[in-house]
Amino acid sequence: MNRIFVLTVLILIAAGEKVCSQTQTNAPAQPPKPAAPRWVPEMTEYYTPAVPVVVPGKASPTAIITPPSDAISLFNGKDLSNWAGKGWDVKDGELIVKKRAGDISTVQTFNDFQLHLEWLVPSNITGTGQQRGNSGVFLQGIYEVQILDDYNDINTTYVNGQTGSIYKQTAPLKNATNAPGQWNAYDIIYTAPRFKEDSTVFSPAYVTVILNGVLLQNHTQIRGNTPYIGLPRYRAHGKGPIRLQDHGDPSEPVHFRNIWIREL
Amino acid sequence: MNRIFVLTVLILIAAGEKVCSQTQTNAPAQPPKPAAPRWVPEMTEYYTPAVPVVVPGKASPTAIITPPSDAISLFNGKDLSNWAGKGWDVKDGELIVKKRAGDISTVQTFNDFQLHLEWLVPSNITGTGQQRGNSGVFLQGIYEVQILDDYNDINTTYVNGQTGSIYKQTAPLKNATNAPGQWNAYDIIYTAPRFKEDSTVFSPAYVTVILNGVLLQNHTQIRGNTPYIGLPRYRAHGKGPIRLQDHGDPSEPVHFRNIWIREL
Amino acid sequence: MNRIFVLTVLILIAAGEKVCSQTQTNAPAQPPKPAAPRWVPEMTEYYTPAVPVVVPGKASPTAIITPPSDAISLFNGKDLSNWAGKGWDVKDGELIVKKRAGDISTVQTFNDFQLHLEWLVPSNITGTGQQRGNSGVFLQGIYEVQILDDYNDINTTYVNGQTGSIYKQTAPLKNATNAPGQWNAYDIIYTAPRFKEDSTVFSPAYVTVILNGVLLQNHTQIRGNTPYIGLPRYRAHGKGPIRLQDHGDPSEPVHFRNIWIREL
Amino acid sequence: MNRIFVLTVLILIAAGEKVCSQTQTNAPAQPPKPAAPRWVPEMTEYYTPAVPVVVPGKASPTAIITPPSDAISLFNGKDLSNWAGKGWDVKDGELIVKKRAGDISTVQTFNDFQLHLEWLVPSNITGTGQQRGNSGVFLQGIYEVQILDDYNDINTTYVNGQTGSIYKQTAPLKNATNAPGQWNAYDIIYTAPRFKEDSTVFSPAYVTVILNGVLLQNHTQIRGNTPYIGLPRYRAHGKGPIRLQDHGDPSEPVHFRNIWIREL
Repeated sequence: MNRIFVLTVLILIAAGEKVCSQTQTNAPAQPPKPAAPRWVPEMTEYYTPAVPVVVPGKASPTAIITPPSDAISLFNGKDLSNWAGKGWDVKDGELIVKKRAGDISTVQTFNDFQLHLEWLVPSNITGTGQQRGNSGVFLQGIYEVQILDDYNDINTTYVNGQTGSIYKQTAPLKNATNAPGQWNAYDIIYTAPRFKEDSTVFSPAYVTVILNGVLLQNHTQIRGNTPYIGLPRYRAHGKGPIRLQDHGDPSEPVHFRNIWIREL
Repeated sequence: MNRIFVLTVLILIAAGEKVCSQTQTNAPAQPPKPAAPRWVPEMTEYYTPAVPVVVPGKASPTAIITPPSDAISLFNGKDLSNWAGKGWDVKDGELIVKKRAGDISTVQTFNDFQLHLEWLVPSNITGTGQQRGNSGVFLQGIYEVQILDDYNDINTTYVNGQTGSIYKQTAPLKNATNAPGQWNAYDIIYTAPRFKEDSTVFSPAYVTVILNGVLLQNHTQIRGNTPYIGLPRYRAHGKGPIRLQDHGDPSEPVHFRNIWIREL
Repeated sequence: MNRIFVLTVLILIAAGEKVCSQTQTNAPAQPPKPAAPRWVPEMTEYYTPAVPVVVPGKASPTAIITPPSDAISLFNGKDLSNWAGKGWDVKDGELIVKKRAGDISTVQTFNDFQLHLEWLVPSNITGTGQQRGNSGVFLQGIYEVQILDDYNDINTTYVNGQTGSIYKQTAPLKNATNAPGQWNAYDIIYTAPRFKEDSTVFSPAYVTVILNGVLLQNHTQIRGNTPYIGLPRYRAHGKGPIRLQDHGDPSEPVHFRNIWIREL
Repeated sequence: MNRIFVLTVLILIAAGEKVCSQTQTNAPAQPPKPAAPRWVPEMTEYYTPAVPVVVPGKASPTAIITPPSDAISLFNGKDLSNWAGKGWDVKDGELIVKKRAGDISTVQTFNDFQLHLEWLVPSNITGTGQQRGNSGVFLQGIYEVQILDDYNDINTTYVNGQTGSIYKQTAPLKNATNAPGQWNAYDIIYTAPRFKEDSTVFSPAYVTVILNGVLLQNHTQIRGNTPYIGLPRYRAHGKGPIRLQDHGDPSEPVHFRNIWIREL
């Protein structure tokens, strides 16, 4: 066999194709053009090492903490006036994902910041894996910190898709998610990437994520965007919004409240 | 002699000077040998840029949050059984500095960690500058994160000596100290320095400090120990304790509670 | 079977596929079970942005620079006495890859280091892409800095497979490879990764690569090992050797000389 | 003694003042105003650990290496046409410090770069310590990499003032200086600091210094400018020139040649 044929075979095989030799009866009459590699989502999903469960500390149920005096409130509890995107529900001071309405993003954009955000998966949540209480916080609209109901490991998924993961990149240090029906608090410290004049990366983004008082990401380097399929890549950009995800599952929608940000 | 005078004499002697007494009559007969450089504390004290005041968010007074399930409780609310050093008072579940009793350190030692610790300056605090509600948390027993009553800038001092400073190194990003009589909560994420086999620094320590929910230090590089006089230096070491400072001022002592740590 | 075919079969088997022979006549009667994701090499091969060609400076042909006094000479010009592995040729003070003899590694192992190493692709080199003057320097036996005849872009390949790439990770900043028949000099500054007690990464490896006086890698973070197929991963390790690659192509073998290292 | 008096005494003593007690006959009639701390140069000069001597490798004397094709030549061997500042001598293709003429800086300014520069201390050099063959390369006009005749430790000085030190900050890893009358070659890889919009430091500068093929600085963090007296500080800036120092000593002047730079 010559080299090109071998390469072709490799690619086809890899692409999930059945391939046989030159004498195969139904072989293509003409040499196939080299197939582009086909990525599948599973290629960037890891299952080990497992993320230990930690039961976070409990505050009294009424212990909502007000924002610091220099924080920018991103949700006023009444409407979507600070957000681009529409259709999401606002009810009882909560912001609720509207399925198939698409993601929403803050009108204001940011560079480095400290973000506080609380989220809740309804107690009647259904579904499994990534289809159970899935949403996410996209830092600068690009880099996703995952939200999922993975409470107490009842719902299993790939570790770099659990709550607090840099999606498809880095698993959280712990699983500190509260049970459905209870609020979870994210405290996120984010350093934006910097780019050189030629648009190459000068310094990547870094993020520290605390969930319910438990450290999940410790100044973790973000390696690029967080696609479902394929590898992370950086593209030069400036300031960006906070984007919240509508994952589009049939299961119950995620709720948000008490969202504020401090520019650093 | 009282303690301060003794300290003075020691410093003067260390500085190579003859100390005058009230009865001194004669100057030295011979020219002094070239003096070694004499550091004074002010050389490492900065006053600009000023640290902006931020009023932290408020929780309900009863909102003590319990530790996560994997945390090590460092203070049991009853006695000093986890601490080396003695004399500090334990009362009403609080750990109270005992003036002139010296610092206390945890028996257990740590490398990288997440530390939670609450502290309070009594409402009847007196004194000014560094003599007002001064204590500190020494990470690994060596690197001080300052505690001081600098509430609302009523009490002024050098910025790299304010609450949340890496003492004499890096000022905090903000002044988010609560008023005397109110509790303050430190959440500290610490990465220990690493040393090479020849005892030189491989990587310095880093620390993130959150006070009352406001970021004061953002993965700040620690440049060495935190002396009162002179420059920071590293000396190779292994695990170390959490040390709390008895600053020895006549003013009211600092109180601590709810101290827990998670090894990273 | 020739070698490439064998390789193909191995990959196909590894991919869980039935490999067709020339005499196969029947397709499987039953639907295959869902396939695990199958990686192909091309998934980690990038072609943009292109690496600019730089003509390196020229020294007089006799300008071999002797090692610094504290360097460890890794090749004595006479035999393989400092190396594990065998069969490679030593001739005229040069170390010459022996095809199919396998890689060779230094007996001595290292942590952080500065490495100098000169290599030459014979002037009668043939082949294309990765089959032309391919060898490599594996830092600590694990992390490959690529060697390839990519002189003046006559031979094209993926950019993160060019000379000076961290193989399948990071393309070099420039293409500064000398023409076949001329020596190239690598100066490599390497900081080994550090691991925590639980075998996770404390700090990744970093490498600076200078080829013929031109900077190709500037304190580049190494993201893990450098496999042909799949993504880089770290596994905890201690000191490691310098490993030189026998790539096994039919083309003319790469020559080495003047190999020395300084521990940092 | 009361506290404030003690503090005053401390400051005065530290400031080199003779101080006696309240009953001293010639005491100032009025309380002295607090003296500003007086820095002396020795406060930032270290003598340990010693820097080991390494004899660098030798090339043939004629082995001047020409610049890479993408390098910017900073000295044409004929005149000062690329430099701001004047009076320095140009002779035999060499650029020679003119005592008391002041420093000279390139007209062109740079951000990140790779710099090559050769320098020579005349063989009839005289003087000791910092007054012997002293010059320096100021990166971006601000951060000095020291040049000094410290060949073979015959001339001793503080280690963070030796050749290859980040002046008054970080000592070189080794002493690899050639003897007076021989050329030395610096290869310097420099990453400029970045500043935030509010002029605070986003990322400090880093430098790798190779002298005569021996690594002296390994991606060393630069902590600010490099003053003779006092501590390093950063002030926000943009691109800057390469500046060469006229140290102004009576001893023989330093020579330069073969100066080129590649922007990164």
